[in-house]
Amino acid sequence: MNTNDKLIKLRSLMALHGLDAFVIFSEDPHGSEIPAEHWRFREYISGFNGSAGTIVVTRNHAGLWTDSRYFIQAEKQLRGSSIELHKMGVPGVPDYVSYLTYLLPSGSKVGLDGFTISISSYRHLFRTLANFDIELDCRYDFADDLFAARPPLPTADVRLVEKAYEGLTRQEKIKAVRQKMAERDATHYLVASLDDIAWLTNMRGSDVAYNPVFYAYMIITPDEEHLYIDPHKLTSTVSKQLEEDGLKVSLYEHYKRNLGNIPEGSRVYYDPKRANACNVLALSKGCIKLEGPSLISQIKACKTDFEMRNITNAHVRDGVALVKAMRWIEENIGQTRVTEMDVAAKIGEMRAQDSHYISESFEPIVAYADHAAIVHYTPTIETNAALERSGLLLMDTGAQYVDGTTDITRTVALGDISAEEMMHYTLVLKGHIALATAIFPEGTKGIQLDTFARQNMWRYGIDYGHGTGHGVGYCLNVHEGPQSISKRDEGVAMELGMLTSNEPGIYVEDSHGIRIESLTVCSLAKKTEFGNFYGFKTVTLFPIDLKPVVRDMLTPLEVKWINAYHERVLSTLSPYLEGADLEWLQKACSGV
Amino acid sequence: MNTNDKLIKLRSLMALHGLDAFVIFSEDPHGSEIPAEHWRFREYISGFNGSAGTIVVTRNHAGLWTDSRYFIQAEKQLRGSSIELHKMGVPGVPDYVSYLTYLLPSGSKVGLDGFTISISSYRHLFRTLANFDIELDCRYDFADDLFAARPPLPTADVRLVEKAYEGLTRQEKIKAVRQKMAERDATHYLVASLDDIAWLTNMRGSDVAYNPVFYAYMIITPDEEHLYIDPHKLTSTVSKQLEEDGLKVSLYEHYKRNLGNIPEGSRVYYDPKRANACNVLALSKGCIKLEGPSLISQIKACKTDFEMRNITNAHVRDGVALVKAMRWIEENIGQTRVTEMDVAAKIGEMRAQDSHYISESFEPIVAYADHAAIVHYTPTIETNAALERSGLLLMDTGAQYVDGTTDITRTVALGDISAEEMMHYTLVLKGHIALATAIFPEGTKGIQLDTFARQNMWRYGIDYGHGTGHGVGYCLNVHEGPQSISKRDEGVAMELGMLTSNEPGIYVEDSHGIRIESLTVCSLAKKTEFGNFYGFKTVTLFPIDLKPVVRDMLTPLEVKWINAYHERVLSTLSPYLEGADLEWLQKACSGV
Repeated sequence: MNTNDKLIKLRSLMALHGLDAFVIFSEDPHGSEIPAEHWRFREYISGFNGSAGTIVVTRNHAGLWTDSRYFIQAEKQLRGSSIELHKMGVPGVPDYVSYLTYLLPSGSKVGLDGFTISISSYRHLFRTLANFDIELDCRYDFADDLFAARPPLPTADVRLVEKAYEGLTRQEKIKAVRQKMAERDATHYLVASLDDIAWLTNMRGSDVAYNPVFYAYMIITPDEEHLYIDPHKLTSTVSKQLEEDGLKVSLYEHYKRNLGNIPEGSRVYYDPKRANACNVLALSKGCIKLEGPSLISQIKACKTDFEMRNITNAHVRDGVALVKAMRWIEENIGQTRVTEMDVAAKIGEMRAQDSHYISESFEPIVAYADHAAIVHYTPTIETNAALERSGLLLMDTGAQYVDGTTDITRTVALGDISAEEMMHYTLVLKGHIALATAIFPEGTKGIQLDTFARQNMWRYGIDYGHGTGHGVGYCLNVHEGPQSISKRDEGVAMELGMLTSNEPGIYVEDSHGIRIESLTVCSLAKKTEFGNFYGFKTVTLFPIDLKPVVRDMLTPLEVKWINAYHERVLSTLSPYLEGADLEWLQKACSGV
Repeated sequence: MNTNDKLIKLRSLMALHGLDAFVIFSEDPHGSEIPAEHWRFREYISGFNGSAGTIVVTRNHAGLWTDSRYFIQAEKQLRGSSIELHKMGVPGVPDYVSYLTYLLPSGSKVGLDGFTISISSYRHLFRTLANFDIELDCRYDFADDLFAARPPLPTADVRLVEKAYEGLTRQEKIKAVRQKMAERDATHYLVASLDDIAWLTNMRGSDVAYNPVFYAYMIITPDEEHLYIDPHKLTSTVSKQLEEDGLKVSLYEHYKRNLGNIPEGSRVYYDPKRANACNVLALSKGCIKLEGPSLISQIKACKTDFEMRNITNAHVRDGVALVKAMRWIEENIGQTRVTEMDVAAKIGEMRAQDSHYISESFEPIVAYADHAAIVHYTPTIETNAALERSGLLLMDTGAQYVDGTTDITRTVALGDISAEEMMHYTLVLKGHIALATAIFPEGTKGIQLDTFARQNMWRYGIDYGHGTGHGVGYCLNVHEGPQSISKRDEGVAMELGMLTSNEPGIYVEDSHGIRIESLTVCSLAKKTEFGNFYGFKTVTLFPIDLKPVVRDMLTPLEVKWINAYHERVLSTLSPYLEGADLEWLQKACSGV
């Protein structure tokens, strides 16, 4: 059945329920970045499998809204269907909410599945439509009817984090969360985010690729903590441990019902960006709703010294594996056929030799020449390019280790590159260094820091469409909140211990793409009469290719930073390398 | 009657009405920065006359919340009263809303005058208090009872803007506003901001000092425009002109009643940050409330080419007047007694010689040595310092001309200054230049630009507590929206034609204060495949003192900018100067 046939079925179901439009989101009930297959209804309907996208279907129109990362991919995947692409963020392109108000006459009715939209987005949609006298109803799980061979919810076992990597115990973490609940006088704290639950319970799962999380909800009160989970996921060892710690386990399906049972007058805290509409609407009207950012995310984001020691170890081993992979790659290009997929496989293979290795931390991006201009390109059998001794190769990869999560991008010159590519590479490097060396007062937000990374390329009339930095978990999601460094103000200040990526880039369609990414940890730079000033320490350990650098564009401070970084990479990784690998590293870490 | 006696009277009135707390704001019903004396109840009660401050009075406590600009002044003015100072923005200091929730038990009742708070702030307060089961009632104009000898509403005449300075006509402006109303399908647009009304009607007033505005409201529909104003303010010439243009005039007092008469089903647009709570609550429940930033402010902020030509002319004459004043000041210090107030008077005197001059555009700040550390210091008879041939003198002054509004700060070394002062001065200058030369993509917001001005001093562990830039009107308010360059994200992108100040500073209590401010206009810097990139052109024309500059801290680009700016100042102002004044300018514009 092709997309247009699926749309016909969807429209007949809409007609049956008196709906003039239906909206399909990409989220699972937990606001996960990577929803399990069970929740990939948008992908099923449209064929578009990017991580972000919303579909609106009316009687006569169907549209997909996605952001610049996916413009090219979406165009390709929508080809042949009647779904139109609406490019989010492009001036003059209305968002799907405005689009609905333009298209639908007053008196219309819009449907959606309220488990797949946050209460915060739902309210915005509801209010906007109400202004135009359009009704919104969130009780339609059409996926159940239309999603042929819909995969069941995952049932993989969860595991306990080993003591050696645990840091704070489950009970210590819950105590810290209760402290934050008390500050807000909350009687109930609802946790929907899967990584928040994995962090809090010191457990990990494998329900989805890349993110070591498991499907569950939690309700925490001053006296009790309830985990809502499919009991088949808990081995007897895990069950026993949870019981010993006094953590109560209930069925996943009972969560919504139990929300409805929270007594009137309770003060219920939740993150309105992560709690879904159906669950929040199940609360009784007499509950006092305390809304705010996840209490757990704030604690989880600031890595403890114990966690940072482990994370640093993981990065040393990750760097060593990458050196071995890169040495192999550079030696073999031009000798044998080496493709983008070969590079991804070799990097994965070298990492997997480590005993702490769990999996990749996201789908590897290995993009040669013009492929790198597609920001989230992943090589497939159809696109897989063979590498030659020329042009730029971009590699954005990462791993989950039991003691940390890595995420690194390096772009390397495989041979001759153009003057423009060199200029762009140098601008990206200058942006990376500007952020790496930034000093800023306590309270500074990501949107303020973002300017550091972009200011040099702006001068040349160049910019990039993605964020500059995202939070990274501790053997958890490679994208975690609350901080981010981007043009969008999330209102979150950078705090000590936050682990954040630093990844400016430049992309020229049909030509090349460049990105340089390391993880950094926020640390105290100086204390003065004007307050506390923070800076970043780069945690990722792998040389930055200097072949594409225009030396004259670098300031003395930038040269100093590169040389100091390379000295540190060399002295830290050398003890774990020998022979040709060590020689490769020594050469790669030469000064600029 | 002292403050404590006034508080006793206030508390007995609170008791009479069953109020557990009363909140006093600084605003008039129009959200004006400078309210007429009639509205200065907060100042009457507390003695604190800074421009921003909120007072909370409970049965046993009284507190004033103000920002860092006024910490020192407020401490001084509250001395002897039982009102405690709460320093806004200092970590750990709760805002007045949280304070109320901490202090009051549930079941309490808080009162205020809803004409003196925006509907947006009112809602935030209302919802927060409701969460704690605290009632809020906005119907208490205690000023009417307590404000002894309360000044009446101003009755000054309004005048029409002369044709030579008008640019767009009244009807052209109203048409542009109606276009924006149509985009939002609005049937009524409520205008409360006095500068929006002055701009739209091409009229000016003198109801308050510095801002050439007049008290009025407007309601604009697709067919009609209604001005609500005290008719005594309209001369027969003005009335006739308005009548010819079809603008209807009603009594100021009838505005709220007429809001109540807007028919149900109407789509009413207003700026929730400027419309006061009492007026908005007067709308019938059946009205659809369309809330968003002022439609007028968006148009008004982007100066037309015609306006920019006039504004540039005003800045040439302003620069000439300042040269004459500064030459006199520098010659006389050390010869005769010259005080801070003498400097302010001399600058005013020189400006007033111009036939286009109307008034100062704000209370002049002339601050010598440690006085300059008080960001909004104004010399008074008690504080007025005599200047000596040493230390730094900060002068932040401006004027209203019929063809433009000016606002300039220069800090000059009167003789020897310390190495620290020189270092700080150079960092401020570097920040000023970084912003003046910034290139940034279309869509960049003030919070992103703010980083340019601060990044150099942050590296030294230095920061300042005020914003970096504010919008400036065209013969209108010296502070106007919607844009601002600061650490707070207002969500407003910098647009072509916006006139904005560039004013970083450094302040060291009990020692010195430095600020360098020029006005700039946003203009197109380059168009590339990555989009449109904007930059700033400096409009203010007056040399920057180079005596306090540490030459080695400047980059070649910074040196180039200073020299080019001074060349432009010299060549533009020279034709209007002669003799000692010209010689002074030539010397001041020498290269760095």
